[in-house]
Amino acid sequence: MNVRLAIVGTGLVGASVGLAAKRAGVPHVGGIDADPDALALAVARGAVDLAATSIEATVADAQLVVIATPVATIRGLAADALGSNTTCTVTDVGSTKATICAALERESRFVGGHPLVGSETQGPAQASAELFDDSPWFLTPHVSTDPERYRLVQEFVGALGADTVEIEPTAHDRLVALVSHLPHALANLLVNQVGAAAESAAPASLRDMTRVAGANPRVWVDIFLDNAEALVDVLGEHRRRVEELEEALRRGDPGALTAWIDEAALKRPR
Amino acid sequence: MNVRLAIVGTGLVGASVGLAAKRAGVPHVGGIDADPDALALAVARGAVDLAATSIEATVADAQLVVIATPVATIRGLAADALGSNTTCTVTDVGSTKATICAALERESRFVGGHPLVGSETQGPAQASAELFDDSPWFLTPHVSTDPERYRLVQEFVGALGADTVEIEPTAHDRLVALVSHLPHALANLLVNQVGAAAESAAPASLRDMTRVAGANPRVWVDIFLDNAEALVDVLGEHRRRVEELEEALRRGDPGALTAWIDEAALKRPR
Repeated sequence: MNVRLAIVGTGLVGASVGLAAKRAGVPHVGGIDADPDALALAVARGAVDLAATSIEATVADAQLVVIATPVATIRGLAADALGSNTTCTVTDVGSTKATICAALERESRFVGGHPLVGSETQGPAQASAELFDDSPWFLTPHVSTDPERYRLVQEFVGALGADTVEIEPTAHDRLVALVSHLPHALANLLVNQVGAAAESAAPASLRDMTRVAGANPRVWVDIFLDNAEALVDVLGEHRRRVEELEEALRRGDPGALTAWIDEAALKRPR
Repeated sequence: MNVRLAIVGTGLVGASVGLAAKRAGVPHVGGIDADPDALALAVARGAVDLAATSIEATVADAQLVVIATPVATIRGLAADALGSNTTCTVTDVGSTKATICAALERESRFVGGHPLVGSETQGPAQASAELFDDSPWFLTPHVSTDPERYRLVQEFVGALGADTVEIEPTAHDRLVALVSHLPHALANLLVNQVGAAAESAAPASLRDMTRVAGANPRVWVDIFLDNAEALVDVLGEHRRRVEELEEALRRGDPGALTAWIDEAALKRPR
């Protein structure tokens, strides 16, 4: 794909965007990161062709800018990029969308985005050109988003190997609270409760369920706080379901337990 | 290991005991299963040398009998084996131990056991000689257990490749409620709550966390009911922890969330 690309934030996701873009034939990728080591490693890995030293320099020649920094910093950096280069299209990879898209709702050149590739790793060392292959990548255009800009981002996301899922920003946040933030929160809760008991006895199921626990506090605290309302809702619903299970166990009710497991067998993602 | 072995119940775990025993040089393995197809498949796979048609015939010549049936049936079958062959040692692989060991507390030839190899599969088709390698295998001797019988079972478990963990039956049930039954229950709860939302968007973390969901209702309903009291305790503690998280999210408290994730990073089983 022939587009001049700039990446702001060359951690795991940003550097993977660079590698997947190079795989898709993107001729030039500029990049910047607050951490000079992360930026140097992204260059060394071939994810970034040119390391810049300022946001202005990074986006100066770009047609498409991808903001791949922690969610709390995205709207400020997106506004900087849009202000500094008055023709480029800007998208992001933040795990929450309502706050960011509301802050940028007048920007016709901004298209909110979120690749669903949650990982327990971080940093450009773990980056991969294949990270997005066949994974969902949410795009959350708002009312003022220019359709041409949307199509550019959609084409780019497809070129990276991902499947575009178009969704309204608030609906996105409710969906990821359920399919991503709730499982992540349960992994942390489970690890903290099990604690030292897992030292003598950690079955494979427990290791699988807690693989993401403890990952990237700097990233996840932002995500949890930014999506706090939706996450509180799904956690409340979870507690109600736990109470129902406790009641079935107290009653010694095999029918209720069988129905509950059968429902899970039907609904399990494969 | 030179012991005449009989296996009652040739599903995933029973047939794997047979395969691992053959690997360890056990010369003769007799077997029986309520399901003739499961028994025939265990024979075809080499897990059982001789298929029997009655419990009496199965255990007649055995020095060691392993009961590998669903937990609700174990104490009855163990009593049958002990009554039918007055010299053999009997052990089991049930996921709960307090009820079974209490029912057999006068039997000096019974040693409660539980290999921690929870799996989402079932049946002898999935059996493997390697299933127990480097996994914990709980042994729960009771007051009247003969030390010589205990040593035989301990040697056998080691020959199968597992690591013996000796623990009191009630302590065992509290431990597995936490490290095995709670994660399993959370996988089911999570799948049932996420439901159809996972169809458009199932991140790898969600798939990992729900791998065991919906598995083997016939086996798990028994386990959950037999360990209901301990499981209700850990589920109540889980709900208290979920409420604490909800409160931190409502307060918008980054310090509490960071401490919570940092604790998980320290405690995560590796």
